[in-house]
Amino acid sequence: MIPHRVMTMKWKDKFDAVSQKNRSLLCVGLDPDLERLPVGIDRTDDGVVAFLTSIIDATAEYVCAYKPNLAFFEALGTSGWEVLKKTLEAIPDEIPVIADAKRGDIGNTAKKYAGALFDTFGFDATTINPLMGFDSVEPFLEYHDKCLFLLCLTSNKGAEDFEIPNKLYLEIARKAKQWNTHENIGLVVGATYPKEMGEIRVAAGDTPILIPGIGAQGGELEASLQAALLPEGDGVIINTSRSVLYASNGSDFKKVASKTAKLYRDHINTARDKIRKKERV
Amino acid sequence: MIPHRVMTMKWKDKFDAVSQKNRSLLCVGLDPDLERLPVGIDRTDDGVVAFLTSIIDATAEYVCAYKPNLAFFEALGTSGWEVLKKTLEAIPDEIPVIADAKRGDIGNTAKKYAGALFDTFGFDATTINPLMGFDSVEPFLEYHDKCLFLLCLTSNKGAEDFEIPNKLYLEIARKAKQWNTHENIGLVVGATYPKEMGEIRVAAGDTPILIPGIGAQGGELEASLQAALLPEGDGVIINTSRSVLYASNGSDFKKVASKTAKLYRDHINTARDKIRKKERV
Repeated sequence: MIPHRVMTMKWKDKFDAVSQKNRSLLCVGLDPDLERLPVGIDRTDDGVVAFLTSIIDATAEYVCAYKPNLAFFEALGTSGWEVLKKTLEAIPDEIPVIADAKRGDIGNTAKKYAGALFDTFGFDATTINPLMGFDSVEPFLEYHDKCLFLLCLTSNKGAEDFEIPNKLYLEIARKAKQWNTHENIGLVVGATYPKEMGEIRVAAGDTPILIPGIGAQGGELEASLQAALLPEGDGVIINTSRSVLYASNGSDFKKVASKTAKLYRDHINTARDKIRKKERV
Repeated sequence: MIPHRVMTMKWKDKFDAVSQKNRSLLCVGLDPDLERLPVGIDRTDDGVVAFLTSIIDATAEYVCAYKPNLAFFEALGTSGWEVLKKTLEAIPDEIPVIADAKRGDIGNTAKKYAGALFDTFGFDATTINPLMGFDSVEPFLEYHDKCLFLLCLTSNKGAEDFEIPNKLYLEIARKAKQWNTHENIGLVVGATYPKEMGEIRVAAGDTPILIPGIGAQGGELEASLQAALLPEGDGVIINTSRSVLYASNGSDFKKVASKTAKLYRDHINTARDKIRKKERV
């Protein structure tokens, strides 16, 4: 099967180019929910594609990446993957796309997942659940041009069940560094724990950190950036999904999504500049 | 959307009925790999459906469940889910089906995954990756008639990276017991660690244990059964995938798959009888 997206560049080159061009660390998550589509959009597969195409069109100049969440496409039924394919086609080739898939399996199964995401759909990166250890990451690592974001410390309450006891998150960060011989591993770290974010940055070296679940306002963004930014002011991707996608459920949704994405991007940049200025003093 | 399978029974009732009727603890995994299809089978979507339908037809009287591995369907591309749907339709309604999906996400995303697996496709059970904690299990738990097999201790080498240090597997087993208020949680435990299997059985109470990756022969099967079987001689599901599916790649594949499934089932029963006899002495 012909990959749906043109894949001529390494993740890092592609990401750096767009991140610089758009002056952005903002990733917009694409989580299409039939129940939350704005008025005037059909609750059908075509409606979902039209909605996401509008969102992409409205935000493309403010983002460093998009992150479709595969659960929301799977929930559309057997045609969900056609909707995903069409959505990927609507994203400009220059913008890297992260599959929020959180796959975690081993051997032949992991190879199949990697093949589906990278060869069939042409994603530039994916999130991975590393619970099963190195064998669950290895088949993805072999795609040197792709980036794999391992779940490390998530922002949900349940992080206290397994990720935080015995500092499992730190062990994941350490292993990620150890496995990162092709420089294609990143980490997913929620913004809820700035102190732990600092420990993770130290343990993981300069691996990129994808930070989900952050609001446009509030100290968490700045504290997380402070802990995670590399000296060059990069190494971090801030994701927001619903607050851009569903910024308005009226007929002005496209305009409001655009405005909100710009606001988020600028807010991140303001925090970034402030931190770098502080560090230079 | 109409669920593709009739869902009139609770997992436990459905499972117990077939397990007793077929006198079987054997689950056959459905991992369709285009490269491994027998001769005479087209390397197309229709070929995969024909192949799996033959396998199901050949083994249905020897199994307690089937376990399609979603990675192998995803790897078929956008039509993979149509292939999955047709495969599910080929499974007799009385036989429960476990989605080997290993999903693990939170909140709205987990709800979407649960909806896709249980409402859209009508699976009776699924495997889940519990790394993100209770929030990643909760939306599935609400389906009281379904069963959720949480990854606990897997048989791959990578289990030594995160599952075994600090006995994380035991913590997963303990939490599973604590969360199991609707009696719909099970665990996935590889056959590689009979000693740890015993610890898990003690920690998890009488929750069902799905044991993948076991051969028809060898002491591991018996040692694992010894550690995991409940006094009634149940509480365990033994999965095998490729050794039945690809038992022959010739035109006799259906006959050989049938023979191999029967052999596995009988071998498990022999070990089971031996253990129960020993315990009665």
